[in-house]
Amino acid sequence: MSQKFKLAVIQMKISESKVDSVHKAIENVAYMADKGANMVVLPEMFNCPYETYRFPAYAEAEGGDTYQRLSKIAKEKKVYLVAGSVPEVEADRIYNTTYIFGPSGDLIGKHRKMHLFEIDIVNGQYFREAETLTAGKSVTVVDTEFGKIGVAICFDVRFPELARLMAQQGAEMLIYPAAFNMTTGPAHWELLFRSRAIDQQVFTVGCAPARDYESNYISYGNSIIVNPWGEVIGRLNDEEGYLFGEIDLSEVSQIRAQLPLNQSIRDDVYELKTILKED
Amino acid sequence: MSQKFKLAVIQMKISESKVDSVHKAIENVAYMADKGANMVVLPEMFNCPYETYRFPAYAEAEGGDTYQRLSKIAKEKKVYLVAGSVPEVEADRIYNTTYIFGPSGDLIGKHRKMHLFEIDIVNGQYFREAETLTAGKSVTVVDTEFGKIGVAICFDVRFPELARLMAQQGAEMLIYPAAFNMTTGPAHWELLFRSRAIDQQVFTVGCAPARDYESNYISYGNSIIVNPWGEVIGRLNDEEGYLFGEIDLSEVSQIRAQLPLNQSIRDDVYELKTILKED
Repeated sequence: MSQKFKLAVIQMKISESKVDSVHKAIENVAYMADKGANMVVLPEMFNCPYETYRFPAYAEAEGGDTYQRLSKIAKEKKVYLVAGSVPEVEADRIYNTTYIFGPSGDLIGKHRKMHLFEIDIVNGQYFREAETLTAGKSVTVVDTEFGKIGVAICFDVRFPELARLMAQQGAEMLIYPAAFNMTTGPAHWELLFRSRAIDQQVFTVGCAPARDYESNYISYGNSIIVNPWGEVIGRLNDEEGYLFGEIDLSEVSQIRAQLPLNQSIRDDVYELKTILKED
Repeated sequence: MSQKFKLAVIQMKISESKVDSVHKAIENVAYMADKGANMVVLPEMFNCPYETYRFPAYAEAEGGDTYQRLSKIAKEKKVYLVAGSVPEVEADRIYNTTYIFGPSGDLIGKHRKMHLFEIDIVNGQYFREAETLTAGKSVTVVDTEFGKIGVAICFDVRFPELARLMAQQGAEMLIYPAAFNMTTGPAHWELLFRSRAIDQQVFTVGCAPARDYESNYISYGNSIIVNPWGEVIGRLNDEEGYLFGEIDLSEVSQIRAQLPLNQSIRDDVYELKTILKED
């Protein structure tokens, strides 16, 4: 089984029009697939401006219109699609959800953001997802023909436990659709993607909306791909664009053979385990 | 209770002569205390060249000569002394051990390196502490008049679980005597100290031997102090010298109030706990 594949990370501006945003995302997926991508990643909340009061208004149930279009393009172009995230409604709850489709168009996994973003900087950035969102409860690792991929969303990257749990379930790449802001982005974005990469000795990927000074929440952009040695192998600036990464997941086992961190985890001294597994 | 204090981090070359190394360390502690330091940190294995075969030969039992001298200088100069690390023998086992003395000269804590260093880079750096060392089993957090301080050693910094456990036990600063090498240092040293700082929202400190191209294991140096926002507030290069940090541990609660990560830890989904607590 080859562990080599071509990864495309799409950094796009998000429109107020859901129709326009989804259309743009689909066109980008098609464009990257035509360039040879085997897997395409979209940004967090790519079909909805990142504002808490909008999440309920833009939300769709699993299987809704956005979902159908994503599934269709994955099937048409025969790509894995880590479909950024969208507001998902189930009963009276709204989640920040990533759907992951296989090249057949089937849903192969789904992640609901587990750690809801909360910030209140003195005289600065304020945001509280819990105003309208409910947090997920599941660790998400999907099987692909290239290897296992862990998927989580944005604020989830700050919690080393979740990265460890994904790696323990076999993930060799951790993909986070994400939208850091102009406070946390310059301070912590690259640092977090590099540190999760070297802690777990995996590839990490951050896929952000392009920066838009017209929006209320200004995304930092800077979509990024990091290898298991912690080196940044691709990074955008603030503008719309894409990263194209030639990935070889066998680098994970190569790095681990030379610096065998997993053998030194002291599971006789401390234990990390999941309590709940299903949403 | 004031959370402000002056921290001195000593970066010194290690000699083949234990007597000389200990003498030099003691003189440095005295010098920094005379300059107003309230707490002084020494490097990993400051009384023994960092080579596995030497650890048994240089090892002393707790309360031995090196220990006595450290305790005496802490008491004389009324400083907290995070006394780097030394090879410690107990029964037929050798540990990589940090003694921590209070301003009374009393031992207030002791850490035995929990994760033993192992590396085998293709055509490069090789080291395996387990050839002569035994790993410790305890999370180490000490009380000081300024706040709680977590102490661990070098390779321990690569394991986010240990940092989390120290922070959960109240540590607002994590001090790691450490000796990265010319492979892992440039690649991961600053990254790890900054990432442990922002994951736990604490100060982190790395205290390394100065670089010595004459030695078999070449220390990277670059002793470092990082604040809870992940900013490097002090860093040396490769040479002998010291860092003097004006620390205010109240920055920890200030940062946590603005970015309340601890509230978002999903202890209903995953659980990290210690299994064993005592060596």
